[in-house]
Amino acid sequence: MLAALTVIVSGGMTFSACAADKNSPVAAVNVFIGTGGDGHTFPGATRPFGMVQLSPDTQVRHFKQSYPWAAGYRYEDDSILGFSHTHFSGTGHSDLGDILVMPYSGETKWEPGYPERAYSGYRSRFSHQQEKAEPGYYSVKLLDHAIDAELTASDRVGLHRYRYAKGEEARMMVDLRSSIYDYKTKNLWSSMRVRSNTLVTGMRETRGWAPGRQLYFAMQFSTPFQSRDIQNREDGVEYRGFAGPGSNGKDKVKIEGKAIVASFDFGMPTDQTVMVKVAISAVSEEGAIANLQEMPSWDFAVERQKASDAWHQALSAVQIEAKPEMRTMAYTALYHSMMGPSLFMDIDGQYRGPDNQVHQANGYRFHSTFSLWDTYRALHPLLSLIQPAQRNTDFVKSLVASQQHSPDGILPVWQFHGLETWCMIGYHAVPVIADLYMKGINDFDADAALNAMVKSAEYGPYGGLQHYMKYGYVPTDLEPEAASKTVEYAFDDWTIARMAEKMGKADIAKKFYARAQNYRNVFDVRTGFIRARKANGEFRVPFDPAVSNFGSDYTEGSAWQYSWYMPHDNAGLIAMLGGDAAAIAKIDQVFDAKVDEKIYAHMEDISGLIGHYAHGNEPSHHVAYLYNYFGAPWKTQARLQQIVDSQYQAKADGLSGNDDLGQMSAWLAFTSFGFYPVAPGSNEYIIGRPFLDKTVLNLPNGKRFTIRAENLSKANMYVGSVRLNGQALHRNFITHEQITAGGELVFVMQSKPNKEWGSKLDARPYTQTAYQ
Amino acid sequence: MLAALTVIVSGGMTFSACAADKNSPVAAVNVFIGTGGDGHTFPGATRPFGMVQLSPDTQVRHFKQSYPWAAGYRYEDDSILGFSHTHFSGTGHSDLGDILVMPYSGETKWEPGYPERAYSGYRSRFSHQQEKAEPGYYSVKLLDHAIDAELTASDRVGLHRYRYAKGEEARMMVDLRSSIYDYKTKNLWSSMRVRSNTLVTGMRETRGWAPGRQLYFAMQFSTPFQSRDIQNREDGVEYRGFAGPGSNGKDKVKIEGKAIVASFDFGMPTDQTVMVKVAISAVSEEGAIANLQEMPSWDFAVERQKASDAWHQALSAVQIEAKPEMRTMAYTALYHSMMGPSLFMDIDGQYRGPDNQVHQANGYRFHSTFSLWDTYRALHPLLSLIQPAQRNTDFVKSLVASQQHSPDGILPVWQFHGLETWCMIGYHAVPVIADLYMKGINDFDADAALNAMVKSAEYGPYGGLQHYMKYGYVPTDLEPEAASKTVEYAFDDWTIARMAEKMGKADIAKKFYARAQNYRNVFDVRTGFIRARKANGEFRVPFDPAVSNFGSDYTEGSAWQYSWYMPHDNAGLIAMLGGDAAAIAKIDQVFDAKVDEKIYAHMEDISGLIGHYAHGNEPSHHVAYLYNYFGAPWKTQARLQQIVDSQYQAKADGLSGNDDLGQMSAWLAFTSFGFYPVAPGSNEYIIGRPFLDKTVLNLPNGKRFTIRAENLSKANMYVGSVRLNGQALHRNFITHEQITAGGELVFVMQSKPNKEWGSKLDARPYTQTAYQ
Repeated sequence: MLAALTVIVSGGMTFSACAADKNSPVAAVNVFIGTGGDGHTFPGATRPFGMVQLSPDTQVRHFKQSYPWAAGYRYEDDSILGFSHTHFSGTGHSDLGDILVMPYSGETKWEPGYPERAYSGYRSRFSHQQEKAEPGYYSVKLLDHAIDAELTASDRVGLHRYRYAKGEEARMMVDLRSSIYDYKTKNLWSSMRVRSNTLVTGMRETRGWAPGRQLYFAMQFSTPFQSRDIQNREDGVEYRGFAGPGSNGKDKVKIEGKAIVASFDFGMPTDQTVMVKVAISAVSEEGAIANLQEMPSWDFAVERQKASDAWHQALSAVQIEAKPEMRTMAYTALYHSMMGPSLFMDIDGQYRGPDNQVHQANGYRFHSTFSLWDTYRALHPLLSLIQPAQRNTDFVKSLVASQQHSPDGILPVWQFHGLETWCMIGYHAVPVIADLYMKGINDFDADAALNAMVKSAEYGPYGGLQHYMKYGYVPTDLEPEAASKTVEYAFDDWTIARMAEKMGKADIAKKFYARAQNYRNVFDVRTGFIRARKANGEFRVPFDPAVSNFGSDYTEGSAWQYSWYMPHDNAGLIAMLGGDAAAIAKIDQVFDAKVDEKIYAHMEDISGLIGHYAHGNEPSHHVAYLYNYFGAPWKTQARLQQIVDSQYQAKADGLSGNDDLGQMSAWLAFTSFGFYPVAPGSNEYIIGRPFLDKTVLNLPNGKRFTIRAENLSKANMYVGSVRLNGQALHRNFITHEQITAGGELVFVMQSKPNKEWGSKLDARPYTQTAYQ
Repeated sequence: MLAALTVIVSGGMTFSACAADKNSPVAAVNVFIGTGGDGHTFPGATRPFGMVQLSPDTQVRHFKQSYPWAAGYRYEDDSILGFSHTHFSGTGHSDLGDILVMPYSGETKWEPGYPERAYSGYRSRFSHQQEKAEPGYYSVKLLDHAIDAELTASDRVGLHRYRYAKGEEARMMVDLRSSIYDYKTKNLWSSMRVRSNTLVTGMRETRGWAPGRQLYFAMQFSTPFQSRDIQNREDGVEYRGFAGPGSNGKDKVKIEGKAIVASFDFGMPTDQTVMVKVAISAVSEEGAIANLQEMPSWDFAVERQKASDAWHQALSAVQIEAKPEMRTMAYTALYHSMMGPSLFMDIDGQYRGPDNQVHQANGYRFHSTFSLWDTYRALHPLLSLIQPAQRNTDFVKSLVASQQHSPDGILPVWQFHGLETWCMIGYHAVPVIADLYMKGINDFDADAALNAMVKSAEYGPYGGLQHYMKYGYVPTDLEPEAASKTVEYAFDDWTIARMAEKMGKADIAKKFYARAQNYRNVFDVRTGFIRARKANGEFRVPFDPAVSNFGSDYTEGSAWQYSWYMPHDNAGLIAMLGGDAAAIAKIDQVFDAKVDEKIYAHMEDISGLIGHYAHGNEPSHHVAYLYNYFGAPWKTQARLQQIVDSQYQAKADGLSGNDDLGQMSAWLAFTSFGFYPVAPGSNEYIIGRPFLDKTVLNLPNGKRFTIRAENLSKANMYVGSVRLNGQALHRNFITHEQITAGGELVFVMQSKPNKEWGSKLDARPYTQTAYQ
């Protein structure tokens, strides 16, 4: 299916040809979507769920306002300071940017310099006209050095190919100082060791988002360096040890400190080309060296093709027919849905766990980078449909192993590189595991998993849980973000109950079904909002449903955004709001409110506003689908058009908020198919409306589920009727089992709302009543 | 042989009875010798070559002038800030002082406070009247807290027993900030984890003498703590991660940072007593937990007895009869000779090597703390006589393993906790290995060892070796300390040649015998001094043989001290000086010079002056024995009396210089027996004169070698005659083989010099000629 690989050499500019067929899913991806604006995605080379994310960094080191550079690269920038090996895709907070490599020509400059003065350091200007990237491959011309740089990656190894201008010595900078969110105190320690003139190893330990994170590396050159200079450019050290062998960085074989930088000179190698392989490991330098075995050859084209093939295979889980821009948006969404959780163990199965100790994974692949507050919503449900069961059970086994290694004995909250960051709220590993288990993806120790889930839900010191268990809600005078915590805990509890019930553990199910009702304790029937209560039972006053603040009662949100969060019991919501009509009216208020964007401007994550609806952040993601529960699916359909039109575009600045390790993208993927998992653990997907002419899900069980949209057009935004396997589908949702059985779902689209379809009570998703 | 253990309880003061019989070697030791003045020994509890050295610290934290507190404790001080688990015995430079534990009563004070204001912190005053220590045991009354503290240790575990005053809550501080040489930037990272109310683990990573040193610990309490408070008292952190579970140190289970301190409250336990076991590991917290298995019981008396037994066994290698003070000095010297190299691996054989990576020791025990510039001279030769061959081959295997792990591929220079410090000069692991091999202690891979030795001697980037190999000396304009390096390299080279010759490797032997003559290239026949030359062959001018400076041509010494360093070729020295008489006259000048001590006062290590002779530092240690080579052994005998009388006393301030991991003590041990190993690798011990009435060496091969001194008295300082196994011994040296064959060496002492004995040419030690 893939075009034979060819190499085009012309002028001084050399880029390999596109590795993927024009019609392939890989070719449809635009890896630059989200690299501008607030998307925080990166354009570099990685494999699906790969441990290495090799990508250009354009941010200014020591730049305090780091948020915009969370992925290292911003499309708006015009200079590159190097290529580093680890990046998050779409986070708000950040870290990583490990082991920066920068080829250069001419004079050695030890500092990256500033973008406004490109020549002041080793940084180089670049142009998007001479930049090209696709899944697994990135290339750019470094204009100030006249170097063609190309990147590709295997799971644990980044491969660089640099072609230098004729007559220039091939040089390379390796800067262990460089970092994302590089505050002055971030680098705790680092070291570099020259093992031969083709192999350099080292490590860096940082206090960033994760504390005490150790990352080891092994760096192999395709051609021996002729000389090198390794320096610790640290100021203000009160104590330095005795000098070891060698008088300076030109003959020292090992150097340690907080500010290690090295330059390598390769002379004028064959074809003016030098390649570098960089393997990473959380375990040890020996682990990193062993990981190099993953990529034995020096054939860049072969490695690039392998990366492309891996993406081809992963993306082929979904075959899409659609208008080009929509197809690109959907495939790019799928691409961004496979950035994490990422592999995080050495080839021998060793990894570092949340206790910062080394462990051995037996019979599974340890994964990390769990942005769970985001990804439990739609990303993990999506992966249950498009990734092999093995990958999904790897996630569960990784989560449960982490719980077993956790000093606190609980499941990960926001984990990367094996370490806990304690970012965001909830115990949302719980719905991830429960959702998979409910879907029959259960090739893991369910008892151990349920035990880990219960422990996480009952661990008093975490996030006010001791108060939640005592009061039935998190009191605002005892714990910040009390309203958000209460409703999210209640949902997580419901998923424990679901799984326990299926496992026949009636006691646990009963206990957690009861806890799942706790959202009611913070619902103020008088105002119709979720509000935080004090320990004495009173709601906190004054109350303004549009107020949001860090440390307030809501997590990156306001009452307008958080009052819809009981996805497991929308029947309860309807009752509290006073019926369907009131619910519809209130949700319309969310979307139609005239909101001065300034009221949310101080919260970086609250973006993508439509009224109070903030598509750029997760608490809103299910809200448009709630009309289905209220008997007005046609309103869902219209809102989806409104959201997709305003929040997604096939360009760098095409995401209205952080992609959040694929959650923003998973929303678009589901929505473009025509349905969305409002309540993970329910096995229900709420039907919206498709944005693709045809979608074929090549399911992990080998079956196919096809979705066709007849008469789809911009104008025909409404669902006239739906057929499942030729039979009219009256319900406004479908189940996971209906999908995985294989078959065909056909939408007939029309320009006017069909207010009948899916509006009857018996057409609506199961309510909580149905589950108890 | 040991008295049954009894416990005396009286008043509020409780100390266990002395574990050792009064006449036992253990009882003869005064562990306080060297804890005052410049000795830098510690009085705390350790086993022979133990990994843990649990001892009180009295130094001021953040005190820049750290040299006097290199062992943590100074006898001159009157307050203790706690008990930490790692200490060097007798170093000049320092590090360690890891994991400080301090019991306290009353209010929690988070800082140690200052000695002049004892109440300002958790520090407590103490009195030597209520302090008692013996090998493997230390106890003190902490006056400000009214707590009786007792310490003992197994190899890897320190055991504390604290008895609190009646009516006081039992409390304890654990301060991971505290350190020896604790400059502000030393602590890179640390963490503490509460695993249960009786088990706490953690780690600390430091940049001290060794960079990036990680030490893990597991701390077990005999009684559960009722509450605790764990804090990171770090200022000026630009970036802190998100808060984990728990609102503060009272319920947090894990904390990380650079300034971790914890307090524990045990309420009022049985007998008002709390015990703590602290195991250390360089590998991991799990490793430290496993090491706790080494000490399963909570019976302090049993553990104390085991420690005492271990010392009894080790010290019983030598049976000594002498006047009490001399006997104490000799046994204390033997005690201090068994502080290092110390065990440094977990019970499963894992250890951290000079690459700072984890390795596995198979079939031997990895040891570290190699103060080789000091200890190759007499300490290692002593251990070849008083320790089992297995311990000595463990040293060799540890050295060779370190060479194999070394980033530079060379043997340790000054290594501790597995890490290289690059302190001092030479490749003196070489004579340690060669000396053992020549003595037939060779149960190791001799080919690997010789390879490691040659690699170390031929590694160009180290210590100017590329120049040494090119010029035949280290040129002063290319490398500091050029004169000292040249002569020490030449000696080390000679030992390589010796071992290679014995192994039948004629080429290597020839090459290194030739290199061993390089000392001649820096001997200035005109002045009669070792002097540094420039690359152009000229001696550096101006020249003052009394000048010493850091970074000068001499290492912690002057030309007066360094011009005697060709121990493998004193015949060559005699020839260059112009005969015996000139040599004797010159060496007399060294001792008899009227020296203003100020000329050496800027060099901390140059102490113990007799003229230019500086017994407090190693370059002088063999000098008094050189008269034997010049045909005047009676002068050696007199000088030894002069040295012992002026440099050693049985009191805290009883060592004239740093004990240097036992080298100062090993000198005294040998000298008190009656001979000394001037040239390790020669298998010769140069006869001086005994200071003990009777010495029985219970040799590792099971044989006994007895040394008797007839008519020994202060006045009878001269050797009249010597009999070996009943036969008159005319030679002024004996061989290792003569000793290890077992037998009896009898000295007849007299008040007047016997200028005949040992003075003939055929009585003198083999010269280098004899070896080629």
